[in-house]
Formats: sequence, C-alpha cells, structure tokens
Amino acid sequence: MAKQQKMVEDITSMEVDFAKWYTDVVKKAELVDYSSVKGCMIIRPYGYAIWENIQADLDKRFKETGHENVYMPLLIPEHLLQVEKDHVEGFAPEVAWVTQGGEETLSERLCIRPTSEVLFCEHYKKIINSYRDLPKLYNQWCNVMRWEKTTRPFLRSSEFLWQEGHTMHETKEEAMEETMQQLRTYEEFYRDTLAIPAVTGRKTDKEKFAGALETYTIEPMMHNGVALQGGTSHYFGTHFAECFGITFTGRDNTQQVPHQTSWGVSTRMIGAIIMVHGDDNGLVLPPKIAPIQLVIVPIAVHKPGVLEKARELQEQLKGKFRVKLDESDNSPGWKFAQYEMKGVPLRLEIGPKDIENNQCVLVTRHNREKTFVSLDELPQVIEQKLQEVHDGIYQRALENLKEKTSVATTLDEFLDIAQNKPGFIKAMWCGDSACEDKIKDLTNGVKSRCIPFEEEHLADTCVCCGKPAKHMVYWGKQY
Amino acid sequence: MAKQQKMVEDITSMEVDFAKWYTDVVKKAELVDYSSVKGCMIIRPYGYAIWENIQADLDKRFKETGHENVYMPLLIPEHLLQVEKDHVEGFAPEVAWVTQGGEETLSERLCIRPTSEVLFCEHYKKIINSYRDLPKLYNQWCNVMRWEKTTRPFLRSSEFLWQEGHTMHETKEEAMEETMQQLRTYEEFYRDTLAIPAVTGRKTDKEKFAGALETYTIEPMMHNGVALQGGTSHYFGTHFAECFGITFTGRDNTQQVPHQTSWGVSTRMIGAIIMVHGDDNGLVLPPKIAPIQLVIVPIAVHKPGVLEKARELQEQLKGKFRVKLDESDNSPGWKFAQYEMKGVPLRLEIGPKDIENNQCVLVTRHNREKTFVSLDELPQVIEQKLQEVHDGIYQRALENLKEKTSVATTLDEFLDIAQNKPGFIKAMWCGDSACEDKIKDLTNGVKSRCIPFEEEHLADTCVCCGKPAKHMVYWGKQY
Repeated sequence: MAKQQKMVEDITSMEVDFAKWYTDVVKKAELVDYSSVKGCMIIRPYGYAIWENIQADLDKRFKETGHENVYMPLLIPEHLLQVEKDHVEGFAPEVAWVTQGGEETLSERLCIRPTSEVLFCEHYKKIINSYRDLPKLYNQWCNVMRWEKTTRPFLRSSEFLWQEGHTMHETKEEAMEETMQQLRTYEEFYRDTLAIPAVTGRKTDKEKFAGALETYTIEPMMHNGVALQGGTSHYFGTHFAECFGITFTGRDNTQQVPHQTSWGVSTRMIGAIIMVHGDDNGLVLPPKIAPIQLVIVPIAVHKPGVLEKARELQEQLKGKFRVKLDESDNSPGWKFAQYEMKGVPLRLEIGPKDIENNQCVLVTRHNREKTFVSLDELPQVIEQKLQEVHDGIYQRALENLKEKTSVATTLDEFLDIAQNKPGFIKAMWCGDSACEDKIKDLTNGVKSRCIPFEEEHLADTCVCCGKPAKHMVYWGKQY
Repeated sequence: MAKQQKMVEDITSMEVDFAKWYTDVVKKAELVDYSSVKGCMIIRPYGYAIWENIQADLDKRFKETGHENVYMPLLIPEHLLQVEKDHVEGFAPEVAWVTQGGEETLSERLCIRPTSEVLFCEHYKKIINSYRDLPKLYNQWCNVMRWEKTTRPFLRSSEFLWQEGHTMHETKEEAMEETMQQLRTYEEFYRDTLAIPAVTGRKTDKEKFAGALETYTIEPMMHNGVALQGGTSHYFGTHFAECFGITFTGRDNTQQVPHQTSWGVSTRMIGAIIMVHGDDNGLVLPPKIAPIQLVIVPIAVHKPGVLEKARELQEQLKGKFRVKLDESDNSPGWKFAQYEMKGVPLRLEIGPKDIENNQCVLVTRHNREKTFVSLDELPQVIEQKLQEVHDGIYQRALENLKEKTSVATTLDEFLDIAQNKPGFIKAMWCGDSACEDKIKDLTNGVKSRCIPFEEEHLADTCVCCGKPAKHMVYWGKQY
C-alpha cells in the first residue's frame, strides 16, 4: 500500500480554456496516452473499459435486431476503392497507403480501411444470389484509419475504433426502415445509456457521406456550445451495388439490385461523454458505462472494524454493481478528489460512527449531494441513486442543449449569434449549398448540422440569400 | 421460406486429401471467404460467432487473474521496431509498410504491427516509475499482420485476430510465475472449453520468439498427425526493458529494471478446432463455443401441432442454451446433413409420434448416437448431453494424440517414423541446434516442438548426433 500522498493534479477550468480542460481530463483521468505515431492514441485501461461497456450495450442492441458480426480485411486494394467515384474522392486524400510487403514492393497500393463499404460489397456480390439471401444484416467492430492533419484524443485521431454496419435489402422501403431503425438505436443508446440528449435529422447534400443518397445523423451538444457528429446512418440506394454488379433473383424471377445501408459510431462517443457531462473536477461518467459505478472510501481506516466493514460491503455489492474499494493509505480527501476526477458516479463513505449507527454516506458525483443510508437498504438505495445520477446528468445536458439553441431569422442575427453565443442556430434554408458555403465563410466554420425530422416554420425565406425557404436547419460549429 | 431443396455439397474425405478437406469445411460451413487482398480472410458470421465465444471465455479468465485490456496503435515507426535487435530481425522481413499518408510521402516508414512488444514498452516507460506501479498486467484484443507467402484460412493468414498480453513485474520470480500462469490458462482453456488435449513445454532456443529468453508453448495434435503451435507465453527477462530504458525505484530505493512477459493466442485456434474434432461430414464444434448448441428439426412439419411444439421447445430452451429452430421447407434429411456439416453438437428431432409420446429424439453430432428423451426432462438431459459431447470429443482427441505419438531412440528409427507415421516423435536431444537443423533437413520439415515439463529418459544419447542427451524433446511437423 502506498504511503506516499500524491495530490490530485489540477485540471484547467473549462471557462478558462475548454480545449486544455479536455486534454487535461483525458490525460489525468488516464483515459489515453499519446504514442510516437502521429495521431494514433493509446487507450488506457480506464478508457478502454468505457469502450468495452459501450460495445457490450450496443452489440446487444444490434443482435436483438437480427444483426450478425463479421470481420473484413484491414487492407483495401486501390482498384477496389476506386469502383465508386464519390467514395474514392471522399476518402483517397486521407488514407494511409501500404506499398511494401516484407521485402517486396507491391504492384498495387493497398490502403488501410478508412471505412469498409467496398469490402462488404465485394463479399456481398459473392453471397447474394436470390431474394432468399436477403436481408444481409452484417456489422463489424474494428479499427479504421484516416490520415488526419490535426488530431485530438477520441474526437479526431488517425486511427480509431468503431462499429460499421453494412446491410443489403430487397426493397428501398426495407433499406430505409433499417437506416432509420439504426439511427433510432443510436438515439436510444445516447439517451438511455450515455444520458446524452441530441438533435437528430438528415444531412444536407453537402454534408452527406461520400457515396450515400441520404445520411442521417445524431448531433449531441457539448458543454461549450460546439456540436459533434455523434453517429451516422446512411442509405445508399442501389448505387454501390450497381457499381459492384451485385444482383439477385427477385420473387418475380427478375434480376434486381439490392438496396444498401451503412451506419456507425466510434470511440469518438467517449469524447462526447467527456464534453457533455464533465466539469471542472474532471469526468462525470454515466452510470451504465462507468467502469467503476461505486467507490468505497473507508474513513479512519485504521480504527478497528472499519476496513472489515468496508470489505464486507464490497463483498455484498460486487455481484450487483461495479464496485471498487480503495484500501490505500491515501487520505480520504485525496481519494474523494481522485474518484471525482475519474467520474465515478457514486461514492460510499464509511467510518466508525457510521458503523455504530448501521449507516453509511452516499455522495453523487455530479452534484455532490450527500445522503445517509441505512446499511439494511443499501443495494436498493444504490440502485436508485445510480438512476438519479443518470437522470440528473441527462437533465443537465438537456438544459445545456436547450440553452445553447438559438433561432435566427436574418443573416445579421445569424452572424451575431454565431459570434457571441456558441451553440446550435435554428434557421431557414433555401436548399442551395452555395448558402452553406457562404455561411461557413462568414462565420469561420458554422455548418449545417442537419434538417430535423420535425421542422419548425421560423420564417418564409432563407436566412442567407432571402430566397424562399425549403427547410429548417440546425447549424453549428463541430468537432 | 425456401421451397428450393439444396443438397449439402460434398466435402472431400479427410483420408483422400486432408488439405482439401480442410478448405472444403471452412468454405462450406461458411466460416470464411477469401478477399481480393492476398492472404487476408473474411471471417463470416458463423466463424466470427465462434471467435466471439472464444473471446468471451478467455477474456473472463484474463480478468479473473487481474489483467486489464488496453488498445495500442496499429502502426509502429521503423525506429521503434529496431530498438531490440532480435525482434527486428525476426519480424522486419514479414511486415507490411505504410509509406504514404494521404497525399504525402512519409519521412519514416511505419509498419503494421506484427506484434506489439515495442509499443507496450514505449508506453510502459512513461507510466512505470516505482515498484508501486507494478505489476502492470495489460492485454489487448486486436488485428495484426505478417506478410505471409503461402496462406491458409485461420492457420496462416497475413492478417489475423488475436490477443496479446504484455506484463511488467518487479522480480524475475513474479514474471516467471505470470508466464507459467498464462500458459496454464491456455492449457485449461484448450481442455475445458475447446475439448482439445495438448502437449505443453518449453521451446528450444532455435524455436523461441524473437527477443524472448524463454518461450513456452501449447501444441495440440491435428487429426492428420501435424502439430500446431496453439499458443505461446514468453519470458523476456529485462532485455527489452533495458533497450527501452524502463526503470523503477525499488522497495530498497535503488533503480531497477522490470521483468517482462508476453503471451498470445489467435484465430488460429479455430483451425485447431476444425482439424482436431472435424470429420468427413464437416465440423464438430465443442459445445462451449458452438454458435448453435442445439438445432431443433421438426419432422413432418406440416402435420398439425408439430411446428407449434417445436416453437414451444425453442422458447423453453433458448434462455438456457444457444438454440436454433429450422422452420424452413428443406427436408429433415437435408437439415440433418446441413447442421452436421456446421458441427452443431446436438440435434433435437420432434414429430407427431414423439409429441403423442411426450418425447423427442436427441442426436449427438460426434457419434450420431440417438436418445429418446421425455420432454419433462429435456433441459437436464440436454445439459448432460452437451457435457457428453465435450467429454466424448476430448477423449477421441486424446486417443488421437496418444496414437500419433511415437518414440525414437535411433536416427534410423526417427527417420522411419517421420516418413511413415505422422505425429509427435519423442526423442532425446543433445541441446545443439545443429541437430535440429539436420533433423529438419533429413525429414523435410520435422522440428522440435517443445521440451515437455516432465521429461522421460528414453535413452542416454542424442537421437541425431549420439552425444550425451540433455533433454527429451517432442518433434513433429507443424502448420
């Protein structure tokens, strides 16, 4: 046991420097470390445990809706990437190329997958022959690589971990249903597991995925008013399938082309968790994915009976919750700060007086609320408290989202908000991408986030050009 | 539902052509498909589900012994790979090199990890300072790449999936204990989960992992008498740590160098499962990792009540076992052959007569034994039967291992066995790698597999050179 008394290192305040606050948190909570490879991160045990909990939850949702996991190759031959024009244009500038294998120079460059549409298409061509082979509902958990110029842990790194679903369907209707179902799955996962509210909707043509007919997105709002593309679900129509020559014999015995979707979320979600829920004391983790849900801190640990009681509680609780007992010699104050920084949702304090009274203290991380709890009711109260934390941080995030959503009906108003009040701007749009370009230029980076499923009528004309408006759009800066 | 009546395609007999039998099985049981990237395989849903079951089981074992999962970068800068001499010599000839990122040519080549010792060392250098930081017990699940010339699905592919544990310890004793513990974990996993018996022991210097002081191995015996390196656990001493400048302040306040281990198993294990348990009808899967443990085949499915009863049984059993009900219009005979090929351990047949008698038929895949079972006792009997299958295929594999293990005390005897009786050859060895080279040359590829933990005294002299023997060695050809 450590005699040494380390102090929890300081974290830069959010208000002072949000970017520095973010990197302080990811480093000091031991989520990641940098490596000697530009833009590639090391995900440390505490960070990876969050990812494992995310994976387990999402994977269960995917399997319940009939999806199967597969594994495709890491490398894509250049000619395969080039089969679909938009796709290669979108990705070729940002891939890593393998040109040597062992001692030999390869006759064709291979790129490290930035995404695997083309690999799935190549495989589907072989295994889809009849309508009986459809739908194909495949997903893969893997690493992908995009050669990024500026990187930030979780938010934008050259290599990241993700899941990519790729499905093939008999009809457009079925494929659209899948596209929407998977977006809904993400929305539910964000809400019910990560305690993160978000705006969802359709991307404009300009912001669509390279090669997709429609891209749907989930856009949570970070604490500082910057949005983040939290997950996307794409409908491809039959275009990729045509490029790859995938056909099937339909129910009416004609040759048909299947309709395709893809959808994905990545380790970037961990960045969202940090920036939506975190505060100046560090991480605040949603209970459902917290590697430690409850930390037990014994008070006056050398007094007789304290450690024994703490261990007894740990034994009692460990089958039901992810529990850690910190038996180290560090002071309770140090431990409080340490596990607050690590975002542990609940702290249980127990000392000699508590034991006398058959009670303990529970403290919720997000609001530091203290409750005295009878030891007889402990498991039930912990259950309730974890739910309270979930609901509490969800509400707080929802208020932030609402507070950081403004409405603009004129360009002046728009520019004023863009400059002075970071967040979403709801405004009308004519449908022309020239207006998206202009707004981006004038605002130093505000882009259309999405056209929500339920549009409001804020004005008759486009906020930018004044022509008749076609859609209400959420705008904002993004990570 | 399919009206079409496909017949199960023929599988080449093992006796006729074992290699073709193997590729027939992996293809026809839909475990893998080939991709357009040389040596990279597509792991299809049925194959990947086996891997997921393997992962879940092993990961639990690792965590129970205190290991934590992390994720290291995919790419290794050339200078980092070169830090340890033996390691770079061992791996540099067989790695894939990234030389271009996006549009630019890189100033330093990056290789796709063939294994991650050097990445772990670079990270450990940063996070290990005191004996209090030890041990570090990290593991990672990931893809790795080795540029192989001839490849075979699961057994030898350029890209494969694996886990690699990398640990650091205060003392040699602790590190050796870890090395042996992890080998034991593999041994138990092979025996208790995969139903595969194996020889374990220490590699000779010649066969050690590039950079390791000691390599321990688990070597199961395939049905055709060829061995397979089924998993390895390495003790590195302090050599890598010295190369990387990793030191810590010891309990006595002196600067010390930690002792290191690494250990790994890969998707190659699926190859072992196929070649140890499979037969001329296809796969035979160990119940603990079978994606489907029990398939329900309704007989005379159009007779009233049959499908209903089959569904009722599925409902009753699905929480307890991995169950599939095949409701398709294919004939029972086709289904029997199909699920035999897929290696499903148990088949449940139920028809009108069975329903009348409140019974069903259970057939065990590995020996086609039929049992009539009262529906009242079904879950218990299935439980027993799955255990019977596990024990039965383990015994069969053990007999094969024994039958395919010979003893040679003279070189003539050795060469005769090597030519005529594929399998392990136990023989004495002087300790000189020149004899290993000579035996390999004379036998067209027989190598030392390992020095077992309990050596027998078969003779006084080396089977090859006649000098005094130091060790008893298991020899054999390998995949």
